[in-house]
Amino acid sequence: MSIIYFLDLFGSFAFALSGALMAIKKDMDLFGIAVLALVTAIGGGITRDMLLGNTPVYILNEPVYIYISIIAAIGAFLFNRMLFKINSIILVADALGLGTFVCIGVSKALEANVTYTGAVLLGLITAIVGGIIRDILANEIPAVLTRDFYAITCIGGGIVYTVLYNYSLSQNQVMLITAGFVIILRLLAIKFKWRLIKALPVLSGENSHL
Amino acid sequence: MSIIYFLDLFGSFAFALSGALMAIKKDMDLFGIAVLALVTAIGGGITRDMLLGNTPVYILNEPVYIYISIIAAIGAFLFNRMLFKINSIILVADALGLGTFVCIGVSKALEANVTYTGAVLLGLITAIVGGIIRDILANEIPAVLTRDFYAITCIGGGIVYTVLYNYSLSQNQVMLITAGFVIILRLLAIKFKWRLIKALPVLSGENSHL
Amino acid sequence: MSIIYFLDLFGSFAFALSGALMAIKKDMDLFGIAVLALVTAIGGGITRDMLLGNTPVYILNEPVYIYISIIAAIGAFLFNRMLFKINSIILVADALGLGTFVCIGVSKALEANVTYTGAVLLGLITAIVGGIIRDILANEIPAVLTRDFYAITCIGGGIVYTVLYNYSLSQNQVMLITAGFVIILRLLAIKFKWRLIKALPVLSGENSHL
Repeated sequence: MSIIYFLDLFGSFAFALSGALMAIKKDMDLFGIAVLALVTAIGGGITRDMLLGNTPVYILNEPVYIYISIIAAIGAFLFNRMLFKINSIILVADALGLGTFVCIGVSKALEANVTYTGAVLLGLITAIVGGIIRDILANEIPAVLTRDFYAITCIGGGIVYTVLYNYSLSQNQVMLITAGFVIILRLLAIKFKWRLIKALPVLSGENSHL
Repeated sequence: MSIIYFLDLFGSFAFALSGALMAIKKDMDLFGIAVLALVTAIGGGITRDMLLGNTPVYILNEPVYIYISIIAAIGAFLFNRMLFKINSIILVADALGLGTFVCIGVSKALEANVTYTGAVLLGLITAIVGGIIRDILANEIPAVLTRDFYAITCIGGGIVYTVLYNYSLSQNQVMLITAGFVIILRLLAIKFKWRLIKALPVLSGENSHL
Repeated sequence: MSIIYFLDLFGSFAFALSGALMAIKKDMDLFGIAVLALVTAIGGGITRDMLLGNTPVYILNEPVYIYISIIAAIGAFLFNRMLFKINSIILVADALGLGTFVCIGVSKALEANVTYTGAVLLGLITAIVGGIIRDILANEIPAVLTRDFYAITCIGGGIVYTVLYNYSLSQNQVMLITAGFVIILRLLAIKFKWRLIKALPVLSGENSHL
């Protein structure tokens, strides 16, 4: 588990940085920066634990993720001009986090004996909910819903994990293969700007509320 | 339970459609459409299960709701121009879902031995939280808070359920009467455009944050 | 516990008022006003209970908080022009709620044997999440993230509580000292308009989504 644990810390730091930078863009104060860093890093994991009933949720007993988020927030606060320029580095770090979060989500779901479809869903939730809460707090439509291939990568990773799970591989092996799959797919998606198709534009769509 | 189960699936499909159509209006990609379909269909039920501590939440073990949402998302993606035109059909389907969701929420609350007021609240939450999350993700003020009689219908249904609960009726009977009450009240509200009153307009209201 | 319980009811009422006034500003109907009152009053406590696994969450068995919120909503509906003018009274009432909510959150966390850092975090969450949900529902960036010293006060209170917790004081004494600390600090912050520093403005920051 040590490589996965290291990737988890590293990915949490990357997620926290993305939250902190969003807060700075939105002109939030230092506390707002820390909150967005924290919720981006831990929002997915907390949601995962609540959905499974793994309570008290992990963050209450593993403060290291809180400290990592605070460090990311202070770092972003001090060096934000530089960080906005090295966006590509953050994207790579974020991909590492993404792969790890998917793995951890799926593995905890399978431990709880949920269905495979449920496990894939939980891996996806673990990976994307932090960023969704970040965007909601920043009063923006969540980026994951509008802009690209991000989530498909997570679903693909979840499927890879649940398939490998039935072969005689150790959990460590399954996790590393899955994380590698997600990370590489994500980096390829960034590199080649893969996008999902959209529906035809709606000209006069008025969907009165349901 | 079979009629309630059928209504539940049907209502989930209607809720998912409303989420998918909102996503299309907001120019989201196919994944965003699927997510809004899914959260609209299952957001209320997941919240209900987390509030009660019924974990792992139902969706992780009953993937049928995930498949229904995906089908609704793909259907909306392909036929959205048509769907925006037959809005009244969707409103009726949504009313069926509403009545069913209220029933299921109240019945699960009573099984957990919470107070009657708590049960009515949980029925309401089960029915409206999915739509609220849909609107938050679409970066809009939730329609249920601003536009009409929608929620009062759910509260009325919850009260009907808790009153009938004390008479010698089977759970099935209570559920069908309650669901019927909600569905009819909702359809009447749509037909006659019932609205709630608003406060007098605030001219210079500046409510500095609390 | 009786003073704390009284402060809790009083603070819940103040929080509910702030939610109701926000709803009126946003032109919501009477139901929207009641919902914003309710979520502002109970959002923090519900989230606390879900994170700890204290389910069914308290509100389902303690309807008094629901009644308080409804009274606040009706009061705000009838007297909103007057209430917007006596904003300073509401700010004081809100400070009482803040101090109490921090205490209750930290004490429940310590009962669940989480780490001290986790307990401070949970006190903060209990105090601010209601207001955050209120602002999200109103489609605004949460005030606590952008405008002032509000949250630091809660963190300070959590630290005071966890420090005192290790001395031979009764829970009542610890709670009253902590609540007093938070309330006084909050009133000073309002009086002297203490603010947190912000990052230097970002001129051309384009943080493509992570």
